[in-house]
Amino acid sequence: MTGWLAVAGLGPGDEALVTPEVTAALAEATHVLGYFPYVARIAPREGLVLLPSDNREELLRAREGLRLAAEGARVVIVSSGDPGVFAMASAVFEAMEDGPQPEVRVLPGITAMLAAAARLGAPLGHDFCAINLSDNLKPWEVIETRLRLAVRADFALAFYNPRSASRPHGFARVLEILREEGGTDRLISFARAVSTPDECLVTVSLGEATPEMADMRTMVIVGSSATRRVGAYVYTPRSVR
Amino acid sequence: MTGWLAVAGLGPGDEALVTPEVTAALAEATHVLGYFPYVARIAPREGLVLLPSDNREELLRAREGLRLAAEGARVVIVSSGDPGVFAMASAVFEAMEDGPQPEVRVLPGITAMLAAAARLGAPLGHDFCAINLSDNLKPWEVIETRLRLAVRADFALAFYNPRSASRPHGFARVLEILREEGGTDRLISFARAVSTPDECLVTVSLGEATPEMADMRTMVIVGSSATRRVGAYVYTPRSVR
Repeated sequence: MTGWLAVAGLGPGDEALVTPEVTAALAEATHVLGYFPYVARIAPREGLVLLPSDNREELLRAREGLRLAAEGARVVIVSSGDPGVFAMASAVFEAMEDGPQPEVRVLPGITAMLAAAARLGAPLGHDFCAINLSDNLKPWEVIETRLRLAVRADFALAFYNPRSASRPHGFARVLEILREEGGTDRLISFARAVSTPDECLVTVSLGEATPEMADMRTMVIVGSSATRRVGAYVYTPRSVR
Repeated sequence: MTGWLAVAGLGPGDEALVTPEVTAALAEATHVLGYFPYVARIAPREGLVLLPSDNREELLRAREGLRLAAEGARVVIVSSGDPGVFAMASAVFEAMEDGPQPEVRVLPGITAMLAAAARLGAPLGHDFCAINLSDNLKPWEVIETRLRLAVRADFALAFYNPRSASRPHGFARVLEILREEGGTDRLISFARAVSTPDECLVTVSLGEATPEMADMRTMVIVGSSATRRVGAYVYTPRSVR
């Protein structure tokens, strides 16, 4: 039997946002690995081994998935959102550098920033950047440089992992940098737990934004200088004058 | 009867990448509007009016969709990929500024850059930018400034609309700017017609890239300075040293 490894995106939470491609891969799997709240979304069935693990164990999980697939198992590693955006796909390829190289497929999903943007309107309707604000895996200086250049280039910005208990002060500094570079008028949206029963959407100006508006379940989207409101929606026009 | 307008993403082409949420909206629709190759993907049925239209008619199409929904129809405007990324959602909100304001929902889809990234490996696994290279709706100088600042910030880059018959020279200039700012060693991937029978994936160094490698069906992804190959895959590591 030839094993394989699929790295699959479950989307932001609502089962109606899981692609049929991912559902089909899960139906064929012998093993499902992932961070425990994501594995909890997979229905148990006979012949399927569920292997939940903790956060920050991405490389261990990736190595285990590659090993099982190399031994002939049909393995799905699940991520929330899209596995290629600040999620498990990069960890799998890192682990492949000094590990087994079975057949690997990445199955895309609806990533948090696009789910959040859809609920807000179309704030990412023109050129934009996606930035992970966690400094667990990169120096803070890199984040600050990218923020400053991205605002100068007048991109809209989508922030993953804006704030956590272990990094309480970083996001306050991010707001300061955004105001220094772009002023206080740009719109900033906080989209929490999108597509789940806990969903909460708030849009304010950068001048009104406070660090407490974000937590670890929040996607933050900052508009470009052109981003505006119409009715209850926030959008970035397609044209730059 | 209360009408509504859904702006729905059909993903890159493969029906297995259409979300159940979009399929459900299409099943309830009385009218489907969109660029004709996208409307051609919708199965005809009794009670459903298909209204295909030409490219570059986005605002007219958006106004027609809003008008029909305000009159009580259940309208879906289809985009390829995700409607919020260089697609129909922004056009709908633009049209709403001086038109009717029925209930509007944006239904996310798998956008071309994330479908392409998944097929290549995980080139967008760290901070990245999405840039539309068409200068139909923005001055060329804006594109050039964004490119230069994005390379200096060491983002990975995803380019929509890299090249068309009406803009044969712009992409050659883009390659020159990328080499001026980032040298010739970065990886650049050309992902054509992803998830369709015509799919073609090519990855070279920036020094080897030529403008002819892209056409209007190609998604172009440029790595950051950290993007690398492992086996047949291209990925950007999660860490910055």
